[in-house]
Amino acid sequence: MMRRRNGGRRARRRERSVPPLASIPFQPLQNPYAPFEILTASQVEGIHSASMHILEEIGVEFLDEETLGIWKSAGAIVDRENQRVRIEADLVEKLLKTVPSSFTLRARNPDRNVTIGGNHINFATVASAPYYSDLKTGRQPGSLKTFERMIRLAQVCGPIHVIEGMLLEPQDVPIPQRHLVKGYTVYALSDKAHLVASHGREIAEDHVNMASIVFGSEEEIKHKPVLSAVVNANSPLRYDERMLGGLLTYARYRQPVAITPFILAGAMSPVSLPAALAQQNAEALAGITLTQLVNPGTPVIYGGFATSIDMQTGSPAFGGPEGALALLAGAQLARFYGLPYRGSGGLNNSKTPDAQAAYESQMTLWPAVLGHTNLIIHSAGWLESGLVCSLEKFVLDIEGLAMMSRFLNGLEISKESLALEEIAEIGPGGNHFGTAYTMARFQDAFYRPTVSDRQNYETWVENGEKDALQRSHEIANQLLESYEQPALPSKVQGELMDYVEKRKQESTVSYF
Amino acid sequence: MMRRRNGGRRARRRERSVPPLASIPFQPLQNPYAPFEILTASQVEGIHSASMHILEEIGVEFLDEETLGIWKSAGAIVDRENQRVRIEADLVEKLLKTVPSSFTLRARNPDRNVTIGGNHINFATVASAPYYSDLKTGRQPGSLKTFERMIRLAQVCGPIHVIEGMLLEPQDVPIPQRHLVKGYTVYALSDKAHLVASHGREIAEDHVNMASIVFGSEEEIKHKPVLSAVVNANSPLRYDERMLGGLLTYARYRQPVAITPFILAGAMSPVSLPAALAQQNAEALAGITLTQLVNPGTPVIYGGFATSIDMQTGSPAFGGPEGALALLAGAQLARFYGLPYRGSGGLNNSKTPDAQAAYESQMTLWPAVLGHTNLIIHSAGWLESGLVCSLEKFVLDIEGLAMMSRFLNGLEISKESLALEEIAEIGPGGNHFGTAYTMARFQDAFYRPTVSDRQNYETWVENGEKDALQRSHEIANQLLESYEQPALPSKVQGELMDYVEKRKQESTVSYF
Repeated sequence: MMRRRNGGRRARRRERSVPPLASIPFQPLQNPYAPFEILTASQVEGIHSASMHILEEIGVEFLDEETLGIWKSAGAIVDRENQRVRIEADLVEKLLKTVPSSFTLRARNPDRNVTIGGNHINFATVASAPYYSDLKTGRQPGSLKTFERMIRLAQVCGPIHVIEGMLLEPQDVPIPQRHLVKGYTVYALSDKAHLVASHGREIAEDHVNMASIVFGSEEEIKHKPVLSAVVNANSPLRYDERMLGGLLTYARYRQPVAITPFILAGAMSPVSLPAALAQQNAEALAGITLTQLVNPGTPVIYGGFATSIDMQTGSPAFGGPEGALALLAGAQLARFYGLPYRGSGGLNNSKTPDAQAAYESQMTLWPAVLGHTNLIIHSAGWLESGLVCSLEKFVLDIEGLAMMSRFLNGLEISKESLALEEIAEIGPGGNHFGTAYTMARFQDAFYRPTVSDRQNYETWVENGEKDALQRSHEIANQLLESYEQPALPSKVQGELMDYVEKRKQESTVSYF
Repeated sequence: MMRRRNGGRRARRRERSVPPLASIPFQPLQNPYAPFEILTASQVEGIHSASMHILEEIGVEFLDEETLGIWKSAGAIVDRENQRVRIEADLVEKLLKTVPSSFTLRARNPDRNVTIGGNHINFATVASAPYYSDLKTGRQPGSLKTFERMIRLAQVCGPIHVIEGMLLEPQDVPIPQRHLVKGYTVYALSDKAHLVASHGREIAEDHVNMASIVFGSEEEIKHKPVLSAVVNANSPLRYDERMLGGLLTYARYRQPVAITPFILAGAMSPVSLPAALAQQNAEALAGITLTQLVNPGTPVIYGGFATSIDMQTGSPAFGGPEGALALLAGAQLARFYGLPYRGSGGLNNSKTPDAQAAYESQMTLWPAVLGHTNLIIHSAGWLESGLVCSLEKFVLDIEGLAMMSRFLNGLEISKESLALEEIAEIGPGGNHFGTAYTMARFQDAFYRPTVSDRQNYETWVENGEKDALQRSHEIANQLLESYEQPALPSKVQGELMDYVEKRKQESTVSYF
């Protein structure tokens, strides 16, 4: 009786407060426009040739014995002592031939499967923020509670296609158990496709085992991938043992990693964007071809994350023109090789979700989307160079993603949409308010914002002069209120819990 | 003595505080990338055909006897009683043939002439804001003092190519004198190209006369244009007497107007973007062809300002996806006819320079720039649906324009920029800090921001936790501090003052 009454109150409250953002459905998104390109064909060739020179003449370090053996068997020139591998352009070319240009990444709810490749655009959340912040409780180390909150929010928001399962670091969970708890939490609270950690063989095996429980069997996930993970090169020109452990493990199970060099030009590459791009390309191709040696035909993603270093502060420059150029150039290179592409969305250096956070994020999102980036990580919630996952920034970003999705719907030119009869009927000097044509269409004709305030000044003052940051805080809470936990079969949930509990005892993981 | 000492203090202060934005030079800007397009060729044809139907079958109202006579002489079907003109597609086509695809708009400093057409991008300030605001003194009616402040700021900021001489309304200047005072102030405080009002024959004649004084003679300005002005259609499908007076006057003196229908779909057009675009196109072509009847070959600009109306509040929806689509579609139509294109930059509905103001502005700027908009009005300072010119928003926008300019510089792929020797020398796992290559290039390698904060969190807190809005206020004052008045020959200044004083007595202008 009590519960029913509570339910009723809750339902009423929900009805009152659900913002338009909560009603945007999950929908596959494609960019129907031709990819926007900043490089000429000969400039692409120039970067490609430079990369081949790097792979052939300079080489890449692989700090992992197993990997060196794989390269040796493949015919690469391996300097065991220096752990350096030189790869001929012919071998690169041969190995790239087996990479699928597109693949499906499955979610535990098949309605939420996503396509990675072609002109498909998928927005994923921020990843790996050590801190969490919101307007009410402030900036604080990430915790399981805030991790869960953000997963719920990501589940609610239609424009989010993919959850980065490393969203923020729950620092109150012991390190050996952390990947297990994160993996379990994502499966329990969300039914969307997600990314996981790639930090070493043990973590990767755990994620594969958890996925096998959820999807039924190891064979089932090998058949059609259900996990993705970012594998970073330690630029310049080095892959460490952890990342290689993740790469090899996921490739064996045919799960698609996103090979992503992390290059700040001026620090991890020469202080020049073309050099950074040539190096990024060489590093990415080294990782991508390695996946094909392990398991030919396994899907893999070309990742770009190059930007410049700020020479005044020594900080990474996020959301600036260099990042925009690098994003678009990376997309062109991926297309040149026929590979799916991973980039980033809402990057910025701001310490608070202000105008800087917003314009830097847009300066990342526009090139990402127009360049046909298939997987756009950090699309929502990223603040302070990625150190903070911000609740309000997440909501601000979601509005941006929703507007961008509408932009990608484009225009339909038809007799009905041109409405010449309506134009004739109203005639010069008239107005279209309240006409039958308007009444029949106004509710769905245009994007309906949630965060963006379109009231007049006087009404805005009456309503408390709230800026976008304050409104986003309220909207975040309303969105969380509308969250509904997607059912996980109890048998699966039980097995998953058993696995996690067992592995929590055994885990020897000492990093995250 | 006193003055010298003051000068010294002032000079020292200036040296200390000049922000990087002040050192960005005035530079012509071109978009080297192919124009980004959202319509297929057949969609462009579809909108074109619908527009021809509107011009031929529905017609446009011209509330001006002289204009109706001009159309009559040209062979259009003129309904004198209803002041409605129907224009055959053949006539439109014929008249469009004489419009130049590109032209130079001269500034009183020839180094600041601008090219309007082709892939040239020109950023102009906000226009016609009745209010001014800054963080210190708040929101207030525009005044001559704040008008002068904004003209100085626009003069200082390198990324601003063109000053909208209607920037904000100095409400403390009597209406009959206002256009004279604004015109004089712009010439006195700035040497950049500028736009003026088009509100009727008397105002337009005054602007032509002032320009003739500054540039030497009427013949001189007829020869090469020195003024531009926005002529709005009173949508739907109507031009009023004031705007037509401006159009006819400027066309006679061969000054290029920007014919800009002001359409909020759902109010001044059917609640459909394609209908709004077809109507905009018909209205724009009606005004553009009229200029050619007055003075064949006079330069003229195709203007787009269509967006949707917000169906919840009845307000214009600025900075949303509909505006972005309309901007790009308008650019394609202008290109279809070989006409220069005018659009807008930093549109938004926000009441304060917050995240909303920033993301909506970027949602306007990106399509404007990528669509090859030749004249981008409202690129800096626009707030609150154009009701407010904001000091801080102006500075925030300038940073955005500066970043966009860098983005348009693109990448130069060369042996030097690919830096393969440097990559080989540093090798895997090294770092490029402090190398000879870095030291020789780091200062100019990357964009150096002014508003954007890239400090770490701790330093930011130590420095007072200032958000972008607070920083922009300080930067605005530093920029104003660096202002230097560009010399105007005293003879010219004297004649100009005499003209303004004389006309102040005679003016019968009763609107602005």
